[in-house]
Amino acid sequence: MQFKLEHRDPASKARAGEMITDHGSIRTPIFMPVGTVASVKGVHQKELREEIDPDIILGNTYHLYLRPGMDILRKAGGLHAFMGWDRNLLTDSGGYQVYSLSGNRKIREEGVKFKSHIDGSAHMFTPEYVMEIQRIIGADIIMAFDECTPYPCDYQYAQRSMHLTHRWLDRCMVHLETLPFPYGYSQTFFPIVQGSTFKDLRKQSAEYIAGVGAEGNAIGGLSVGEPAEEMYAMTEVVCDILPEDKPRYLMGVGTPINLLENIALGIDMFDCVMPTRNGRNGMLFTAHGTINIKNKKWESDFSPIDADGPTFVDREYTKAYLRHLFVANEYLGKQIATIHNLGFYLWLVREARSHILAGDFASWKNRMVKQMDNRL
Amino acid sequence: MQFKLEHRDPASKARAGEMITDHGSIRTPIFMPVGTVASVKGVHQKELREEIDPDIILGNTYHLYLRPGMDILRKAGGLHAFMGWDRNLLTDSGGYQVYSLSGNRKIREEGVKFKSHIDGSAHMFTPEYVMEIQRIIGADIIMAFDECTPYPCDYQYAQRSMHLTHRWLDRCMVHLETLPFPYGYSQTFFPIVQGSTFKDLRKQSAEYIAGVGAEGNAIGGLSVGEPAEEMYAMTEVVCDILPEDKPRYLMGVGTPINLLENIALGIDMFDCVMPTRNGRNGMLFTAHGTINIKNKKWESDFSPIDADGPTFVDREYTKAYLRHLFVANEYLGKQIATIHNLGFYLWLVREARSHILAGDFASWKNRMVKQMDNRL
Ligand SMILES: [Zn+2]
Ligand SMILES: [Zn+2]
Repeated sequence: MQFKLEHRDPASKARAGEMITDHGSIRTPIFMPVGTVASVKGVHQKELREEIDPDIILGNTYHLYLRPGMDILRKAGGLHAFMGWDRNLLTDSGGYQVYSLSGNRKIREEGVKFKSHIDGSAHMFTPEYVMEIQRIIGADIIMAFDECTPYPCDYQYAQRSMHLTHRWLDRCMVHLETLPFPYGYSQTFFPIVQGSTFKDLRKQSAEYIAGVGAEGNAIGGLSVGEPAEEMYAMTEVVCDILPEDKPRYLMGVGTPINLLENIALGIDMFDCVMPTRNGRNGMLFTAHGTINIKNKKWESDFSPIDADGPTFVDREYTKAYLRHLFVANEYLGKQIATIHNLGFYLWLVREARSHILAGDFASWKNRMVKQMDNRL
Repeated sequence: MQFKLEHRDPASKARAGEMITDHGSIRTPIFMPVGTVASVKGVHQKELREEIDPDIILGNTYHLYLRPGMDILRKAGGLHAFMGWDRNLLTDSGGYQVYSLSGNRKIREEGVKFKSHIDGSAHMFTPEYVMEIQRIIGADIIMAFDECTPYPCDYQYAQRSMHLTHRWLDRCMVHLETLPFPYGYSQTFFPIVQGSTFKDLRKQSAEYIAGVGAEGNAIGGLSVGEPAEEMYAMTEVVCDILPEDKPRYLMGVGTPINLLENIALGIDMFDCVMPTRNGRNGMLFTAHGTINIKNKKWESDFSPIDADGPTFVDREYTKAYLRHLFVANEYLGKQIATIHNLGFYLWLVREARSHILAGDFASWKNRMVKQMDNRL
């Protein structure tokens, strides 16, 4: 992978860049739609390509490992071929999902034993095994196996967990050396900074992660319930330590406002289920604030969903029609809201990029943050 | 509405024609996808237009009356505007849906009292009221309010019910004279032949319906559980009586084979939930037979869903991927199967039409019926 830093904003730490992998270009800052189990819920790949147009989407290792499973993914020639997506893919390591199974997993030095949420079957993820799984899934960017701590988390636990994540990182990297690329294109490995909401741990972890010299670096364990200010504080501490010439990925973040604030702190990559999950619940993000489309106030509003929106759903459907679909529990409503929200998120990061390139990101960001902080 | 009979098949009673309404042309034979509550479940209007391409779709009066309701539909300017569909629309009369509410409705001379399946609220449909409702919904073709008898049905009940349907028809027609078109385009009214599976009743009803001189005629009360042979026998009896120069609509039918057999008997129009509902359950119709995509045999079949299929889903997705989506309970699977099935149904009626125009429908039909009668 190559990463080229194209421009820095003069009034913030925001950066515009471009990553180039064997599956093409990823212009940063970028938001990656989440395609958990080889599908961005309710969205055709054609709509992703033609309407939402992300350079990269994300798959979840835990879910893909369970279904369709390694055998089918290997036979398919990897996830790109299996799902018919020839742009970039990133897979997480399963760490976050396994951590979310709270009652059904045990964390040990060796790895994590867990029970499938589908059939209760017993499995074990080790750093080595997760690297093998991610080789078979075949994403362009693959992630270290880490422990994601909950919020709040006591200092002792956060510290112990961070060192475990560091030891697991070493094992991931040693094992990856032994694993050839199975499909004729290369994969790029990102380690993950942990340390909960403790500045000294975040510093220590960022230094450790910076020290391994990876081609890109990630920040995990945020957006797990902490106040936004704490998240920004951690991002700032970590970004000041991670190398400037490598992309920085803030995992699992966040609202449109979170994206812009973290871009201002030097983050290049994001993923989050918020635009898709909240969309399925009838929440729309727009440049002028959020809409709860189930609200009675939209009942007879025959204006387009988002007259300035980038996707066909924004212009072809009205608010009244979309509200009706939600009230009548028609799945088309979820499809429309998901496409709208993802289209908006991608529009937002592209706008951020062009303002960074134009040199006026900071003032644009402040205006947008204000304007998006409304309920319509 | 104009109807032009373009060609008759020399070896069967199949016909090719064209209806022209204020919303454009409907080439027959035609299959109308069902958009129950102002949405063909899981399918964007854009996909309907660009991929499935029907000249007309159907809405259900009962469902639309309950949600979004008359007030919103009137304010929207009718269903075309509300849902963003500028081709033809047909609405049923609610008779079939109300009849399906078995425990929750009472049929009297005046009309039908029923309770909403949504909130249990009490409502009453009379022939007059249903005409008013269909004026407000504003479909291009609207249907008489009838009673749809169950199968099996005893002779006495079928006979009494048929005469009730005839009396209601008279009331519909008298009342329609008093109701102007609300949206600047006209609507065409179709009466409905009933009579259960009794030839003499079907004859009597067909004569009554033919006698009212409507611009098109429908056959109801079939495809409610009777063997296909009984359905075909009734269609034949009725088609021999209904005027040749008016379109004939067989309501609620059916499988791809049912369509071809009934086209051979002189039917021009069909609607059915089968391609959409069965699609959502993982059943695919193809020219070579049906596929249960949930079956393990498709697990590693990386061939396209239907290499010769007319829609993008047929070529872009593999059987293995579609099976995975069903196994993982991802809604995208239902979306794909629905588009595939509707695309196939529309392809089938268009093929039928071109074989009628070419004069070789009967032999093509026999070959197709054989070939579609497989489980793949
Ligand atoms: Zn450490
Ligand atoms: Zn009668």
